[in-house]
Amino acid sequence: MVSKAFLLTEMTWPEVQQALHTVKIAIIPLGAHEQHGPHMVESCDAVLAEEMGKRLTERLYPQAILAPTINMGVSTHHIRFPGTISLQPTTVIAILRDMITSLQQHGIQQFLILNSHGGNQATLGVAVDMLTSELNVRIYYAKTTASAKDVMDRRIESKMYGHSCDREVSEALYLAPQLVRTEKLEKADYQEGRWQHLRPGNPLQGFYYYDEMTRNGCIGDATKASADIGREIVETALDRLATSIKEVM
Amino acid sequence: MVSKAFLLTEMTWPEVQQALHTVKIAIIPLGAHEQHGPHMVESCDAVLAEEMGKRLTERLYPQAILAPTINMGVSTHHIRFPGTISLQPTTVIAILRDMITSLQQHGIQQFLILNSHGGNQATLGVAVDMLTSELNVRIYYAKTTASAKDVMDRRIESKMYGHSCDREVSEALYLAPQLVRTEKLEKADYQEGRWQHLRPGNPLQGFYYYDEMTRNGCIGDATKASADIGREIVETALDRLATSIKEVM
Amino acid sequence: MVSKAFLLTEMTWPEVQQALHTVKIAIIPLGAHEQHGPHMVESCDAVLAEEMGKRLTERLYPQAILAPTINMGVSTHHIRFPGTISLQPTTVIAILRDMITSLQQHGIQQFLILNSHGGNQATLGVAVDMLTSELNVRIYYAKTTASAKDVMDRRIESKMYGHSCDREVSEALYLAPQLVRTEKLEKADYQEGRWQHLRPGNPLQGFYYYDEMTRNGCIGDATKASADIGREIVETALDRLATSIKEVM
Amino acid sequence: MVSKAFLLTEMTWPEVQQALHTVKIAIIPLGAHEQHGPHMVESCDAVLAEEMGKRLTERLYPQAILAPTINMGVSTHHIRFPGTISLQPTTVIAILRDMITSLQQHGIQQFLILNSHGGNQATLGVAVDMLTSELNVRIYYAKTTASAKDVMDRRIESKMYGHSCDREVSEALYLAPQLVRTEKLEKADYQEGRWQHLRPGNPLQGFYYYDEMTRNGCIGDATKASADIGREIVETALDRLATSIKEVM
Amino acid sequence: MVSKAFLLTEMTWPEVQQALHTVKIAIIPLGAHEQHGPHMVESCDAVLAEEMGKRLTERLYPQAILAPTINMGVSTHHIRFPGTISLQPTTVIAILRDMITSLQQHGIQQFLILNSHGGNQATLGVAVDMLTSELNVRIYYAKTTASAKDVMDRRIESKMYGHSCDREVSEALYLAPQLVRTEKLEKADYQEGRWQHLRPGNPLQGFYYYDEMTRNGCIGDATKASADIGREIVETALDRLATSIKEVM
Amino acid sequence: MVSKAFLLTEMTWPEVQQALHTVKIAIIPLGAHEQHGPHMVESCDAVLAEEMGKRLTERLYPQAILAPTINMGVSTHHIRFPGTISLQPTTVIAILRDMITSLQQHGIQQFLILNSHGGNQATLGVAVDMLTSELNVRIYYAKTTASAKDVMDRRIESKMYGHSCDREVSEALYLAPQLVRTEKLEKADYQEGRWQHLRPGNPLQGFYYYDEMTRNGCIGDATKASADIGREIVETALDRLATSIKEVM
Repeated sequence: MVSKAFLLTEMTWPEVQQALHTVKIAIIPLGAHEQHGPHMVESCDAVLAEEMGKRLTERLYPQAILAPTINMGVSTHHIRFPGTISLQPTTVIAILRDMITSLQQHGIQQFLILNSHGGNQATLGVAVDMLTSELNVRIYYAKTTASAKDVMDRRIESKMYGHSCDREVSEALYLAPQLVRTEKLEKADYQEGRWQHLRPGNPLQGFYYYDEMTRNGCIGDATKASADIGREIVETALDRLATSIKEVM
Repeated sequence: MVSKAFLLTEMTWPEVQQALHTVKIAIIPLGAHEQHGPHMVESCDAVLAEEMGKRLTERLYPQAILAPTINMGVSTHHIRFPGTISLQPTTVIAILRDMITSLQQHGIQQFLILNSHGGNQATLGVAVDMLTSELNVRIYYAKTTASAKDVMDRRIESKMYGHSCDREVSEALYLAPQLVRTEKLEKADYQEGRWQHLRPGNPLQGFYYYDEMTRNGCIGDATKASADIGREIVETALDRLATSIKEVM
Repeated sequence: MVSKAFLLTEMTWPEVQQALHTVKIAIIPLGAHEQHGPHMVESCDAVLAEEMGKRLTERLYPQAILAPTINMGVSTHHIRFPGTISLQPTTVIAILRDMITSLQQHGIQQFLILNSHGGNQATLGVAVDMLTSELNVRIYYAKTTASAKDVMDRRIESKMYGHSCDREVSEALYLAPQLVRTEKLEKADYQEGRWQHLRPGNPLQGFYYYDEMTRNGCIGDATKASADIGREIVETALDRLATSIKEVM
Repeated sequence: MVSKAFLLTEMTWPEVQQALHTVKIAIIPLGAHEQHGPHMVESCDAVLAEEMGKRLTERLYPQAILAPTINMGVSTHHIRFPGTISLQPTTVIAILRDMITSLQQHGIQQFLILNSHGGNQATLGVAVDMLTSELNVRIYYAKTTASAKDVMDRRIESKMYGHSCDREVSEALYLAPQLVRTEKLEKADYQEGRWQHLRPGNPLQGFYYYDEMTRNGCIGDATKASADIGREIVETALDRLATSIKEVM
Repeated sequence: MVSKAFLLTEMTWPEVQQALHTVKIAIIPLGAHEQHGPHMVESCDAVLAEEMGKRLTERLYPQAILAPTINMGVSTHHIRFPGTISLQPTTVIAILRDMITSLQQHGIQQFLILNSHGGNQATLGVAVDMLTSELNVRIYYAKTTASAKDVMDRRIESKMYGHSCDREVSEALYLAPQLVRTEKLEKADYQEGRWQHLRPGNPLQGFYYYDEMTRNGCIGDATKASADIGREIVETALDRLATSIKEVM
Repeated sequence: MVSKAFLLTEMTWPEVQQALHTVKIAIIPLGAHEQHGPHMVESCDAVLAEEMGKRLTERLYPQAILAPTINMGVSTHHIRFPGTISLQPTTVIAILRDMITSLQQHGIQQFLILNSHGGNQATLGVAVDMLTSELNVRIYYAKTTASAKDVMDRRIESKMYGHSCDREVSEALYLAPQLVRTEKLEKADYQEGRWQHLRPGNPLQGFYYYDEMTRNGCIGDATKASADIGREIVETALDRLATSIKEVM
């Protein structure tokens, strides 16, 4: 699907050596392994981050190279649902430190962490602060499709979305349809709780478990997802990310 | 200025013992020690967090108690300006762990970290995730006046604000005027740079030093600040914070 | 290729919940991201560990479940070759701790770390010692095909093998031929050095960089590899591993 | 009260920049947040360290600058009394490392940690050992008034003193009378116990909780305290500290 | 017993200074403190490592110097037997880091860790990987007598040996007979268990407690031990170690 | 020399098991490996701690058991003299944590750390604070002969003593004469410096290297040492330590 792009996992060392003549930035996909309700599989975020990473690397050819995907992340909120695996924030930072240190030895000085999972964002904020001064490199990070917020607002009907919802299922239907159980699509099965006072936009933030909010593990309404919505979100985000990276690189 | 409130620093142990009969939540002010341009002193965030903490504790009397203020925070962005002291994110988390562990031994199970400094937010996100499961307590956090966003949007003229700006100087003029050198108020002395692609709302986030953005260390226009603007922001935020805490407590 | 097996990355949480009725052990594939000479791509070990994991999980159905693959490992020896990424041993142990802790919360008490990369073995020895007592679980580990040592000795002609050699290329040709550049197969380009006194079987062990030993990053003679050799090694090892796990489970 | 002194918390960055032309040493006050019996508030040590710091900085003007106060310390011994907050020794060392590292970036190479709390002394001994070689700076530390030991011996009647006693209350009456509940002054309410074999001067040292020793949390006899005793202790100590610092600076 | 050798513990600093003119490698003996059945004392491994270290240092005079012995190690497997003390792998690595860092400051750049205890081997593998790149030194390690494997195979009758067995008791009878209770020699008191599937040579490795395997804490048959067998093993190993070190030094 | 005492290093596990019926406290000798001038060898502190430990354990028979000696300690001050090895304070604490944790599993709940080296004292203060609450045990510590301060004051002529001086050489002549080069006894070769303002009794404390103080690494006057002085110091201290332990045990 990806026509021409430097994918580190699929290259030999002489090929990497050759690519490093033009490469200026490494893209590190960061996902999660966590429940996505009855209609998406647990590797969803890892796969979406990798698929976005491949397409972005392709657009930035020959200046970008795609590093291996970090396929687990900080998923404490989801740990009560069967199958979720959560890394400590300190573990994610350790992985990033080791990856950046290694790639820096090969001559790369700029990094984009391409993150598909909201639960990783605070950890990335901390990681970028710490590792920038520790390692003297430039580190950027982006939520995979967050820059297409206007498209989401126009095309997503659900008032609240963000996890195994209209938006995420749409992205998956476009990028990796094998992640979706199309015959099991459900909307959120919400329940009352403390979380209602802790969502973004409220005066307080705080930790709650996802099952305090939704019995089936989804929010929004996945039955309204479509590959076409996914396509518009994804392609818009990729355009904007590619443009931004070219500006700072 | 504060009429009746449980302030832990100003109590003896028998007084604390008595207060614990009604106290349900501890409020931990978190500030920073960092440059605030030519017109505010470096303790600005620590003092504002403490002042907000006192007022909020007063409103929640006798259910809240104010813990000592953490008077330094994560200020890597400002480290190139003379006088800035920055704690590692891991240090801030260690302080919070020790404070919460100690207060938990006295019977307190709920905590609000009241943070005045944007640079601490990612660290708090991580801290709350980690410490909630480690210690089995409820932890909330809030940016001191962020819940008055609508008031800011109405009364602040500068397009970009957030550090030693119209908003922050206004809050200080109302809460702690000794922090402000009123004879030295300046607006931002911006310069071109990479930061323009990394502000909130852009596709990318990333680390930059504050002096890449502004030569004098301020943003916005502090000459337009007033105690009256400060009053409206502060009082609105305090009302909303108090209401929210009562709802979740 | 895998007919019926519990693959955690490809399941929804209700499917995991159902599987946990019979699952007694989680299999964690551990690989590496490192140079494999001019004829194999850098993800080789990660892919082989995952492929072995799938097949072993299939044989142990419905008692085993396959966890996500740890796709980087301890590759300090290879860091001087372009593209290699090496995790600190402490990072690998942190990942394992987090994975096992998470899966333990879902009721799993036995773990097999299925490792394809020699450079991870010491770290696993330490990890198993530490995590067994910390977490009170049973942890086993195995080099993916080491139990077919007799087959290797019979079918591999090279005196020294172990990395991007006759053996490893054979395994790849059988399990994941896309990893191999069949048009670029080379034998080792050895050079004299300190490493000759540090190979297994010598009185001393010690660290050396792989390029001190071989200029092209391979050992043995990959031109003698075949899918048929790979098949015999792999299938023998899978049989023996499955038998052993059933005995201890 | 302090006439002319560089107080970092009350300066803007251009003022700090100017001061750094003459500043050779930074003074870091270190206190504690812990019970002080029925007649002193819990912030006692933090406030006394800061007050001593201000006065010492004044005497060393323009060669010293006062850093923000570390307002909590190692108070494990007091944790069973309501309100006490104790930091781990490792946390205190982390704070000191971050502060010294930050100030070093502004050009300061000498540091005095001015500590008012006995429970911090061992941690400081360790911190100074570790940080001196890590950071290649000169670090001194002093108990705030310990150098006036002869004055204490002459003017304090209680045989055992050191915590919320004749000495400490006297210092507070002179430096920060708001810390003292003068209407509640009590002498120690001792009880028998293991601690009697563990006080300084005994063959053994060891950990005991303060409530094993004294029911009301004090030692000595605070009813004999006076501002005049405090004045002599404090001023003698300040003279001696200032002299010593000038000698080594 | 040792005629001429640089033993760091028995030298004054001027003597060390003199020795450093010829010394090229430091030998660090690493043992353990753990149960050795009814017929050997718990310091067995520490003493044997030190004795081997002395003899090896003598053979390498004047190019080697013997560092102090690390007299405890990783003994988790034995912790259920009275008296065993086990260090965490991270503790052993910390000790090695500190020792090597110190000796490096005196000008030594090569190190041999001479280890008598199998349970330390994985930790050493990790230590050598980490410390080599951290400290930029050359580190070798060796099991004390492992290089005499052919002698053991020829002279030891027990099929399984390795801990307080024919081999180890023989080594002790030759090197340090005071370690052996000759009147209490016993052979292993084995029992059935999971361990049978986890010994070297099996497809799986994994952790088990030693008392799952042997009730008296021994394996093999110590009644067949002799000083003569010990002599041949020890002297052969010393010859081979000395030769190897000269080759790489 | 020691008639009847439980020495853990010299016991088999069945003997330990038997001893544990009466043992109530474990004694952990802690020394150092550091320069002791031209007339004492570098293992001095480790050997003296162990010798004192043996004698004290004998006096407390059958209630005490002697753990293995920690033969290196915190010797940063001496690191510039050839041969000195210094452990980080965190390493010493890790060793103590592991030892106490292990011995606690065998049923021992009280510990005495018997320390011969002043440079370890601050670390012990921290260790005892941290480990007491972490592990819920009773931990005592003592400088080996500090309780005989009155004897020292009476019999030692040098004004300043404490390291390879009249006192320490006397102790060694009595306890372990092999440590002393009697033909090379020297008094201190002092030089002027910052250290003069940092000795105990001065207002300031702080770190300095030992060679800033004394060119030959000694203080005091070792030529005045005698085994008889050593005997009185040692025997007095042992009596007092034994009495104190019996009181708290």
